[in-house]
Amino acid sequence: MSHARVLCAGRVVTCDPARATPDDPLGTIDDGAVLVVDGRVAAVGERAQVLAAAPAVVIVDEAAGGLLTPGLVDAHTHAPFVGSRHEEYALRMSGAGYEAIAAAGGGIVASMRAVRSATQEELEATLASRLERMARCGVTTVEAKSGYGLDLASERRQLLAVAHVERADRPRLVATYLALHALPPEAGGDRDAFAARVLAHDLPSIAAEGLAKFVDAYVDRNAFSVAQARPVLARARELGLGVRLHVGQFADVGGAELAAELGAASADHLENVGEAGAMALGKAGVRACLLPVASFTLGQAAPPVALLRAAGVTMVVASDANPGTAPTESLPLALAFAVRLYGLTVSEAILGATREAAASLGLTDVGLLAPGARADVVMWDLPHEACLVQPFGTSRALQVFRDGSPL
Amino acid sequence: MSHARVLCAGRVVTCDPARATPDDPLGTIDDGAVLVVDGRVAAVGERAQVLAAAPAVVIVDEAAGGLLTPGLVDAHTHAPFVGSRHEEYALRMSGAGYEAIAAAGGGIVASMRAVRSATQEELEATLASRLERMARCGVTTVEAKSGYGLDLASERRQLLAVAHVERADRPRLVATYLALHALPPEAGGDRDAFAARVLAHDLPSIAAEGLAKFVDAYVDRNAFSVAQARPVLARARELGLGVRLHVGQFADVGGAELAAELGAASADHLENVGEAGAMALGKAGVRACLLPVASFTLGQAAPPVALLRAAGVTMVVASDANPGTAPTESLPLALAFAVRLYGLTVSEAILGATREAAASLGLTDVGLLAPGARADVVMWDLPHEACLVQPFGTSRALQVFRDGSPL
Repeated sequence: MSHARVLCAGRVVTCDPARATPDDPLGTIDDGAVLVVDGRVAAVGERAQVLAAAPAVVIVDEAAGGLLTPGLVDAHTHAPFVGSRHEEYALRMSGAGYEAIAAAGGGIVASMRAVRSATQEELEATLASRLERMARCGVTTVEAKSGYGLDLASERRQLLAVAHVERADRPRLVATYLALHALPPEAGGDRDAFAARVLAHDLPSIAAEGLAKFVDAYVDRNAFSVAQARPVLARARELGLGVRLHVGQFADVGGAELAAELGAASADHLENVGEAGAMALGKAGVRACLLPVASFTLGQAAPPVALLRAAGVTMVVASDANPGTAPTESLPLALAFAVRLYGLTVSEAILGATREAAASLGLTDVGLLAPGARADVVMWDLPHEACLVQPFGTSRALQVFRDGSPL
Repeated sequence: MSHARVLCAGRVVTCDPARATPDDPLGTIDDGAVLVVDGRVAAVGERAQVLAAAPAVVIVDEAAGGLLTPGLVDAHTHAPFVGSRHEEYALRMSGAGYEAIAAAGGGIVASMRAVRSATQEELEATLASRLERMARCGVTTVEAKSGYGLDLASERRQLLAVAHVERADRPRLVATYLALHALPPEAGGDRDAFAARVLAHDLPSIAAEGLAKFVDAYVDRNAFSVAQARPVLARARELGLGVRLHVGQFADVGGAELAAELGAASADHLENVGEAGAMALGKAGVRACLLPVASFTLGQAAPPVALLRAAGVTMVVASDANPGTAPTESLPLALAFAVRLYGLTVSEAILGATREAAASLGLTDVGLLAPGARADVVMWDLPHEACLVQPFGTSRALQVFRDGSPL
């Protein structure tokens, strides 16, 4: 017997392109409802119509005067981390730079040490509690990168944590193998050799085990070069995996063009991308994933949003949740920063944390409320979607559903 | 029979001036404990010593590896508001200025309309749920201003809401009558007449009813002048009330000097205060209450923190929780902004949200963990106080105690 539920609210934000208009890019419905049957959206529309068409036996949930949106999708996180880098954070606040901190043994390698010394149980328990806090913010899908293992065994443990923690009553996880993040100490400073080993050995192993949907590489000054990253990411494509890249966080070294060349699912960061890179992304249809908590923490200027818009690049906004440059767990906070610090419109920000974020993860039935979509829905204690980009700093989600069931 | 409890943690931040040193302004104790008897702190120290001195029958709570701090004190909020000003927020994000929004009928007067049309029950239920969200962030004392009523009956209703909502299982409330905030439409633009009426009629009535501990006035360009505010605040002092001022948010019109002249408990905002004002505050021992979420929302530069330090001004950090310029409910988020955007040190920020915030509210037994203090304590799911200033955007408080009892 099918399980049916109608969620009603003063305002429904569908993010359905079929409902979008130039004046209403989010496809909103006042006094609307969503019919959920067996974990999928069966109908969306005005309340009276949806209720009239609903099965006889149905649960009706009322977000009194409130707001319904698709579950939020956080398309860039380093969630499977353990440990705290608060000393580094305090240093950074008093003026130390990212690269100085990394050179002093902080940064990514500090998290590598924490991951390598944690038990599998610790990795999984920490990730699970982090996901529960994210869910309370209205997040129902989380991309989760490895990249703090920096050797095959430890990267694999991070990705196993993602696989083991995935559960129907937590946010959906999408695993990314961050193959080229930083050099571990044992690499002796040889980036070429490290990348060659990842290409020949680690990547095929991770792919064969089916532990990741995407492969990622950090292409930047003081990270990996285009020449080092290209073979790894090209091989990932051949192995049937998607690719996403960290590019232009500190310098434009051609990462955006590489993302375009490879047909990447997203090019992330882009605080420093030039016109050629932006045009390449637009032409190739690569989404830009903006990470405003990181640039806030680092005291950086905004990415060139006007240039990205002019190049026709679709924008995604993500938390970048990580223990160093973006010690946050709140995608709504990232939206507030994207609007205030980057000048995104409310609609751009919300689409970038729902439909467009999902699309960048290869999910077409997530991030929108339309017939056939997965019933990931948030009931907010808020009257309007413009509230979602305000920096509340507390959870304003009343109820969060994934596949039609409360999280 | 007395009720005793020992709270243990890997690290205890006492904020006790008797324990502070130049290297450790927060008076921290590693592997420490707090003995609570009958709602007060009975002892603080190393775990073994505290446990040895504890009564035989005692509950021991362990914040596994975690952190204990005093309950946070939010010394500047407009918490008794109702309604949402999301349209104005979206307008502001796309470039409209504060004064333009106010001139267009938005701003404070929009919240006045919402307060005047709300029932007393709505005012109280909204405040209660906001306080519960604040408590989950580790906040145990909240200053709560009126100022959205703008006539005696409506200001009184806001202050009655504060009085009625105060309950042992919620944050402690300190009521402030914000006597001069903005002009209501019925004042016909006559600020002198409005201030005169407040002086002669509204203030004595509020004072006689005992509804407020402090009186506040907004002294700024396009708000009230020093000449308009002085008689009201001086009369408040005569009536036995403390005073606090909004000064220098947009322009230095002498508000800081007025705060010094009146021996105010705090001078709040100060984004625009000159050297004379800062020196006056320092000389008079008036605390500066900084409100970084407001300046973030307004896209303003930081207040002159170096100047305030040089003048010997003690700093407080508060949320400014309000529906317009600081739509936040999180004091921890304000701390993250104070450190990142204003350059406060971790210690300055934490003292500014504990002991110094409490002192600015006239509370000497709150905001510190020392024998005799009220047992307002937060157990954090964090290893170190430097984590408290990171922009998590989720609640990292595991347990929050007010007067020794869990909130």
